[in-house]
Amino acid sequence: MIIVKLGGSVISDKKVEFSFREDVVRRIAREIAEFFPEKRFMIVHGGGSFGHPLAKKFRIREGLTDDSKRFGFSATHLAMLDLSGRIVRAFLDEGLPAFPVSTSSVFVTENGEVVHGDLTVVEMLLGLGFIPVLFGDVSVDVKKGIDILSGDQIIAYLARKLRPEKVIFLMDVGGIYAGKPGEASLVEKLRPGDIEGLIERLSGAAGIDVTGGIANKLRKAREIAEYSEVWFVNGLVPGRLAGAIRGDTTGTVVSKRP
Amino acid sequence: MIIVKLGGSVISDKKVEFSFREDVVRRIAREIAEFFPEKRFMIVHGGGSFGHPLAKKFRIREGLTDDSKRFGFSATHLAMLDLSGRIVRAFLDEGLPAFPVSTSSVFVTENGEVVHGDLTVVEMLLGLGFIPVLFGDVSVDVKKGIDILSGDQIIAYLARKLRPEKVIFLMDVGGIYAGKPGEASLVEKLRPGDIEGLIERLSGAAGIDVTGGIANKLRKAREIAEYSEVWFVNGLVPGRLAGAIRGDTTGTVVSKRP
Repeated sequence: MIIVKLGGSVISDKKVEFSFREDVVRRIAREIAEFFPEKRFMIVHGGGSFGHPLAKKFRIREGLTDDSKRFGFSATHLAMLDLSGRIVRAFLDEGLPAFPVSTSSVFVTENGEVVHGDLTVVEMLLGLGFIPVLFGDVSVDVKKGIDILSGDQIIAYLARKLRPEKVIFLMDVGGIYAGKPGEASLVEKLRPGDIEGLIERLSGAAGIDVTGGIANKLRKAREIAEYSEVWFVNGLVPGRLAGAIRGDTTGTVVSKRP
Repeated sequence: MIIVKLGGSVISDKKVEFSFREDVVRRIAREIAEFFPEKRFMIVHGGGSFGHPLAKKFRIREGLTDDSKRFGFSATHLAMLDLSGRIVRAFLDEGLPAFPVSTSSVFVTENGEVVHGDLTVVEMLLGLGFIPVLFGDVSVDVKKGIDILSGDQIIAYLARKLRPEKVIFLMDVGGIYAGKPGEASLVEKLRPGDIEGLIERLSGAAGIDVTGGIANKLRKAREIAEYSEVWFVNGLVPGRLAGAIRGDTTGTVVSKRP
């Protein structure tokens, strides 16, 4: 089984609210269809320009600080259901039996990580030949009441529980760079043990924001690489996903094996 | 905590596909808002003209008999997410913090009944002051692969696990009748022990379809009445729901107590 992460910046233009790149998602579906059902897949997608602006507007990460927060919590989830529905429909149109599983219905968080999750339905769906589709979502939280559960944290949890053969992160850049994309060189192979050093070097490089996305992604990749191969490839370039599934393409591979 | 079932024939016109009675749902929300948050609520709604036509068209109840079934399974769930989203939005607009929980993400069925369900998220949502909204939905099934889980079966399961003080079924008729609605008299009070006899009498009466909805509803009411009071009232008549919450209205009450 292969987990494919559809990054928010791949499936939508983050600068335009509620923009959905249907053509990109359908092309991604077609690349998966080349290998399905011989290989099994799970999809996890990010919030893109659907979930992020609302989560920020309603300050969901602050927790359930007042009564009005509940309305923002619901509104953010409804936006994610909208995005997820569009992705599932694009997959169905390309002949793939995708089925959406509502992340917030299944997982409970603490400090942004999954502390409770019942994977019974997800595992049954996989066994029945479906492609389960999960997504970054709002979450009920044991400490803060409410929070956000990111797609990358879900993937780390799923990888630990389900042991996929491979996890492929689709991004809007070519992989992991040793500095600024476009200026620094692509890191083609990474050992899990080299990741903390890389994050430190990136923190030193001016202008690289390691507080958010990429440092978290790299640390999650280090966790996942304990049992699965991890790929970072450009999801906007046709063929890169298919290449990562086959195991020969331009991108970054994180692997314990030499 | 009170569970309110929004019958499919209350929230939509079953004769018109994808028709949604927003005015009715908003009025129902306003009746609940008279009592919230002093009383806690959960909503379960039926498929109405969203889920039913698709479930029938794709013959979901036959199970996973061939590959094409998976597409109908997904399409039926997407239609239910659409309906549920509209209900949640109507509740939010009336100031109620509703939050949708995807039934198919949480429950596994066998013979149309819940055999596995993780209520952690639902219970946490209730504790945090939300109104969880569940719905009749498609389900993964341990025997048939896929099936339908009706709102009434979910309610029986939730009532057994969560012991609400009351369960209120909103219908498009005034309650349970001793024969055809409009011809026979309304049964105002029912003991759980009288229910099988009533179903038998109704089966005898010409033209009463007891194979489907009403017999199932009455049998579920008998189960639920072991620990909760059960009301059947007309959800299309303003004030009946509020009356059932208070405990004084026209309708049918099923109760163990005299």
